[in-house]
Amino acid sequence: MMMGDDVENGNLGPYLDRPRTFPNMRSKPYTPLISEAIRDGAEGFFKTQYGTISKMAVLLALVILSIYLFRNTTPQQESSGLGRATSACITVAAFLLGALCSGVAGYVGMWVSVRANVRVSSAARRSAREALQIAVRAGGFSALVVVGMAVIGIAILYATFYVWLGVDSPGSMKVTDLPLLLVGYGFGASFVALFAQLGGGIYTKAADVGADLVGKVEQGIPEDDPRNPAVIADLVGDNVGDCAARGADLFESIAAEIISAMILGGTMAQHCKIEDPSGFILFPLVVHSFDLVVSSIGILSIRGTRDSNVKVPLEDPMTILQKGYSVTIILAVLTFFGSTRWLLYTEQAPSAWLNFSLCGLVGIITAYVFVWITKYYTDYKHEPVRTLALSSSTGHGTNIIAGVSLGLESTAIPVLVISVSIISAFWLGHTSGLVDETGTPTGGLFGTAVATMGMLSTAAYILTMDMFGPIADNAGGIVEMSQQPESVREITDVLDAVGNTTKATTKGFAIGSAALASFLLFSAYMDEVSSFAREPFKQVDIAIPEVFIGGLLGSMLIFLFSAWACAAVGRTAQEVVKEVRRQFIERPGIMVGLRFQLPFTDYKEKPDYGRCVAIVASASLREMIKPGALAIVSPIVVGFLFRVLGHYTGHPLLGAKVVAALLMFATVSGILMALFLNTAGGAWDNAKKFIETGALGGKGSESHKAAITGDTVGDPFKDTVGPSLHVLIKMLATITLVMAPVFL
Amino acid sequence: MMMGDDVENGNLGPYLDRPRTFPNMRSKPYTPLISEAIRDGAEGFFKTQYGTISKMAVLLALVILSIYLFRNTTPQQESSGLGRATSACITVAAFLLGALCSGVAGYVGMWVSVRANVRVSSAARRSAREALQIAVRAGGFSALVVVGMAVIGIAILYATFYVWLGVDSPGSMKVTDLPLLLVGYGFGASFVALFAQLGGGIYTKAADVGADLVGKVEQGIPEDDPRNPAVIADLVGDNVGDCAARGADLFESIAAEIISAMILGGTMAQHCKIEDPSGFILFPLVVHSFDLVVSSIGILSIRGTRDSNVKVPLEDPMTILQKGYSVTIILAVLTFFGSTRWLLYTEQAPSAWLNFSLCGLVGIITAYVFVWITKYYTDYKHEPVRTLALSSSTGHGTNIIAGVSLGLESTAIPVLVISVSIISAFWLGHTSGLVDETGTPTGGLFGTAVATMGMLSTAAYILTMDMFGPIADNAGGIVEMSQQPESVREITDVLDAVGNTTKATTKGFAIGSAALASFLLFSAYMDEVSSFAREPFKQVDIAIPEVFIGGLLGSMLIFLFSAWACAAVGRTAQEVVKEVRRQFIERPGIMVGLRFQLPFTDYKEKPDYGRCVAIVASASLREMIKPGALAIVSPIVVGFLFRVLGHYTGHPLLGAKVVAALLMFATVSGILMALFLNTAGGAWDNAKKFIETGALGGKGSESHKAAITGDTVGDPFKDTVGPSLHVLIKMLATITLVMAPVFL
Repeated sequence: MMMGDDVENGNLGPYLDRPRTFPNMRSKPYTPLISEAIRDGAEGFFKTQYGTISKMAVLLALVILSIYLFRNTTPQQESSGLGRATSACITVAAFLLGALCSGVAGYVGMWVSVRANVRVSSAARRSAREALQIAVRAGGFSALVVVGMAVIGIAILYATFYVWLGVDSPGSMKVTDLPLLLVGYGFGASFVALFAQLGGGIYTKAADVGADLVGKVEQGIPEDDPRNPAVIADLVGDNVGDCAARGADLFESIAAEIISAMILGGTMAQHCKIEDPSGFILFPLVVHSFDLVVSSIGILSIRGTRDSNVKVPLEDPMTILQKGYSVTIILAVLTFFGSTRWLLYTEQAPSAWLNFSLCGLVGIITAYVFVWITKYYTDYKHEPVRTLALSSSTGHGTNIIAGVSLGLESTAIPVLVISVSIISAFWLGHTSGLVDETGTPTGGLFGTAVATMGMLSTAAYILTMDMFGPIADNAGGIVEMSQQPESVREITDVLDAVGNTTKATTKGFAIGSAALASFLLFSAYMDEVSSFAREPFKQVDIAIPEVFIGGLLGSMLIFLFSAWACAAVGRTAQEVVKEVRRQFIERPGIMVGLRFQLPFTDYKEKPDYGRCVAIVASASLREMIKPGALAIVSPIVVGFLFRVLGHYTGHPLLGAKVVAALLMFATVSGILMALFLNTAGGAWDNAKKFIETGALGGKGSESHKAAITGDTVGDPFKDTVGPSLHVLIKMLATITLVMAPVFL
Repeated sequence: MMMGDDVENGNLGPYLDRPRTFPNMRSKPYTPLISEAIRDGAEGFFKTQYGTISKMAVLLALVILSIYLFRNTTPQQESSGLGRATSACITVAAFLLGALCSGVAGYVGMWVSVRANVRVSSAARRSAREALQIAVRAGGFSALVVVGMAVIGIAILYATFYVWLGVDSPGSMKVTDLPLLLVGYGFGASFVALFAQLGGGIYTKAADVGADLVGKVEQGIPEDDPRNPAVIADLVGDNVGDCAARGADLFESIAAEIISAMILGGTMAQHCKIEDPSGFILFPLVVHSFDLVVSSIGILSIRGTRDSNVKVPLEDPMTILQKGYSVTIILAVLTFFGSTRWLLYTEQAPSAWLNFSLCGLVGIITAYVFVWITKYYTDYKHEPVRTLALSSSTGHGTNIIAGVSLGLESTAIPVLVISVSIISAFWLGHTSGLVDETGTPTGGLFGTAVATMGMLSTAAYILTMDMFGPIADNAGGIVEMSQQPESVREITDVLDAVGNTTKATTKGFAIGSAALASFLLFSAYMDEVSSFAREPFKQVDIAIPEVFIGGLLGSMLIFLFSAWACAAVGRTAQEVVKEVRRQFIERPGIMVGLRFQLPFTDYKEKPDYGRCVAIVASASLREMIKPGALAIVSPIVVGFLFRVLGHYTGHPLLGAKVVAALLMFATVSGILMALFLNTAGGAWDNAKKFIETGALGGKGSESHKAAITGDTVGDPFKDTVGPSLHVLIKMLATITLVMAPVFL
């Protein structure tokens, strides 16, 4: 009986058994109970979601195992005496470890966030600065764990393989080939991240859209109002969607980037016959270890003033966060120069380390510029969002048109920046003085890799700013639901607004680093194919019709994936809308007391939060399967089909070439689509917030209604589809790398 | 004084001088005056627009002239004794002729449409069948002129050059090189088509959106109501946007396709040393000449029943149109097989003509499938639009989300179809038995070219169905404005609805043929670069960072162009909204009489239609410049910059390679984006129409309001940005071909 309730109510049972939670909304002690409901909802969903994901991961592990047992071996493997069975086990073990670590990263993000939210909301009753500090420290803790796990997981795998395979001893594997064994780890991480992001993203936005459409638009009650039956589901969503999923997303970015940089470093060291290649291979691990240190200092530089209990008007929290970012960046530049001098100095090319330092600087500047551009397009202090807000005054339609064009336009400058940084890092690497036996410069790609590392060298701080957002958002929800005084709400509102901006900017950063990481993984893929095929695989010529079609299919994959992810949110939101409408009709007591418009009102009936949580949880688990499966199955199917076609038409390596084109076109389209969706969504959100500050008629005006429509549309764009695309493009890069034997 | 009025009222002067137009709306004889106002507005805008376009064309001609005077010559030119000056003059002359013909094609489309609309509306008073017949014949006339001009223009150029240059006589040009001289014609056509589509598309949708937002949404008056100050501008827009622009669009498709197929035919004939290559070169001209004949028969097969004056319930007009299409398709298949046997038979490979016939069949089937897919996704008889309509019941936001995901999803099947047809046509050509000196099969690309011809072999009939739409729409507007009886309106409403479907399906056809044509032009570009560079240029390797960046920039170009075109409509629509709101406030008499809800009501004041026309006209001329200039300037700038970069970094042909990647990625992204925008727009339009049939609460319900928002957003998607992208991708292909000397 208890069990049955448990299941039906999406594990909210214990909470629902406590009918005293909302008998009287006045009493502050109930605040923790709200947060308990959020925690139960989030942990229940996390358990079910990761249960599903782990079953799929095991299935996929079996597929990988059987493929690797029947695949050809590479010359490197033969020379090192690595048999098929060993190589299969290594890949599968790396895959499972990557998946596990990614899951843990997500869990930690969520675990911290569901505990920090209530502490931030109670700190907000004391001082704004303290609330900010707690939120930042909580976010920082998760961020450090996430980055640390990526570094340590890879370090452990690397060390284990090194010892176990007797690397560098005669007759066994060379150290420069070792990083290729780690690709399974990256694939495991991106596999879990994809489903975590999809499931969490659908959950959070379906609940949000559903709650807003009925609550805000139809019933006219404010955000996070306790009368809204979907409000707990919405707050749960912030944790499972934003915290858990972004943790998994950046974990996977860093893992993919470390592995691809290690592969490229190894390949280059081998080509250049560098006496001690381990510096080039271990460089990424060192850079990210320093990231942990410099970001911690940045986070700690944001100090609370716990002694002053007076509510002094808070300094703009954005300024405080940016000060911390400046500290982190300056330290990152210094340590980066130090690490390059230490690890990348070689007597062959004495000034190469300086070139690579400059590559790192290019990456750090790129990260900074990306953050700035996203801020320009999504912050209402700047022109674009104000124009968007203005277009709300002529109706819902013009608001959507303006938002779509703003989002499309916002892709231009990031693309130019990425282009300039790829080219300049490539040329800095190319002219570093490192040459292979024939005297050809070979450092270009490694230069791009170093730039990517530079970009990610402040990842932990960026992730902190990102995690900060949903914690502040949740704290605001708890404050609103427990009906604290206006002054407390003002504090959490300010933090929430800052959180929105930092969330948007982090997405700019995530997509920029995804673009660079994919470009590196693409090179690793070409290396991997050459070694399997035992022939050079240097070109992907899109003038060949089949290869062109591979590109067409790759871009189409992005569109179809976005369509399905977007439709999933729409469908789930419609279920929520119907449920919330039903509750308002069947329990009219929910709204009784409204007409007095007093704060601290009692209501006759309380809504059934649990049903909304259960509906959203089961729908989002169901809906994440289709787009996720599409992303995993289609590159494998396309590669295999063209391999067969190539076999019958006398076209060697056709499958591998078509997959390469698919990957590149999907990456390009994915970057653009993600930029479009993230920026449009963020801009709509802030255009609404701008109107809520009183501009253009303020809250309740026709402009505001139009702006809410834009915000609703933007929700799945920026929090479901956009971030899923970040993960998707890296997942595509790692899956092609692991599945390469299928295409040959 | 008269002149000043003329200018201020956007050339509506003569119409405004006739104050007796609306003194009493009862009298039918005034109908022609409404159509006269439409005609004056359309012709006034056309004149100004083409004035601007021709100035830009002359400027561009001078640029081309100076580039060609300083460029290197090709070995072909040297061997034929063609000097730089001659070659420059030829290209510029071809460019100007192409631009002129494209302009005339647009003018004819508009000229016919502004005259046919009133005849259709008066025929609708007699019989539905007669109205249908007149609309189809009028559309057919324009379509035949457009296709005929493309064929005759190229034939004249070809013949002139043939005679003038003494082709095939010793020491002069070979006939197989002649088609390359025609590329200027294609560029001229696409240059004019781009601006025609942009200007016309912005005009029509800004007027439509502006009229709807205030008229339908705020004031609650029906579409095309004479009280709406923007109604004349809206009706003018149908003519300048839909008729003129789609005429120019398909004109340019056919021209580009003929020229690229001639180039490929010539190249292949030369490689295979076919004794008489003229069959291969002239084949496209013959196919399109037959198109004129078979489409005429298809059009004439739609017969009126003029003798019966009784208003019998009309057979579904869509069925009638599809019967005509079936007739056309059957005849097209027969003539296609005949022409391939006649022109492509060669003793070297006796069965090659059969393979090429099958390629043609592949193209015809592709066209049919494309039309069918578009119909599936945009017709409310099918699942997708019904689901979209259902999502309107939960609000504006869910409607937009569902429409966006429908549009994104609709890209998948067309891409699969295009992929299958490119591969199968390529392999049919490849295995045709045609081989070059070394015995390598060479017919692959020509096979794709023949498939494109097959696809376009019913272009005149498809264009007829397209032109039919705006004519019926306009007739409906005239009927509504002159307040004819309900029964007449019902007839034009049915025709209008069918017109919407045919317009949507034609876009599917246009984008499919654009995809194939661009693929051909890309091959022609590679040939052109090889002959300028005097070295083989066979590969575009996207593993080179710069080339990859070219691709990234190409995709970005599509996003930015779409953003600017979309924003242009939004901005102009906002101006219209403000003007219409102003008129309703300043002239309250416009609406007096409303409360009796009688048909044939007199109103106290008449709105100032002229001001809306003038506002839309000047804004759309201003707004078309930015996206148009972007499209023209960016490939040239990117190519030139990377040429310089390649020069300094010792990378030959870098500029040409980067431009090739830009072109391919832009083509792929452009196809997907256009499919997305066209289908989403069409689906939103028909979801609204579905609700208007009484579903989900019918007219005036909350669902209907949400559906109107979707329709408003879809308007610029499907009628401005989507069709502009068709033209853009072909324009990019021709501009890179003509500007190739800049990149080398």
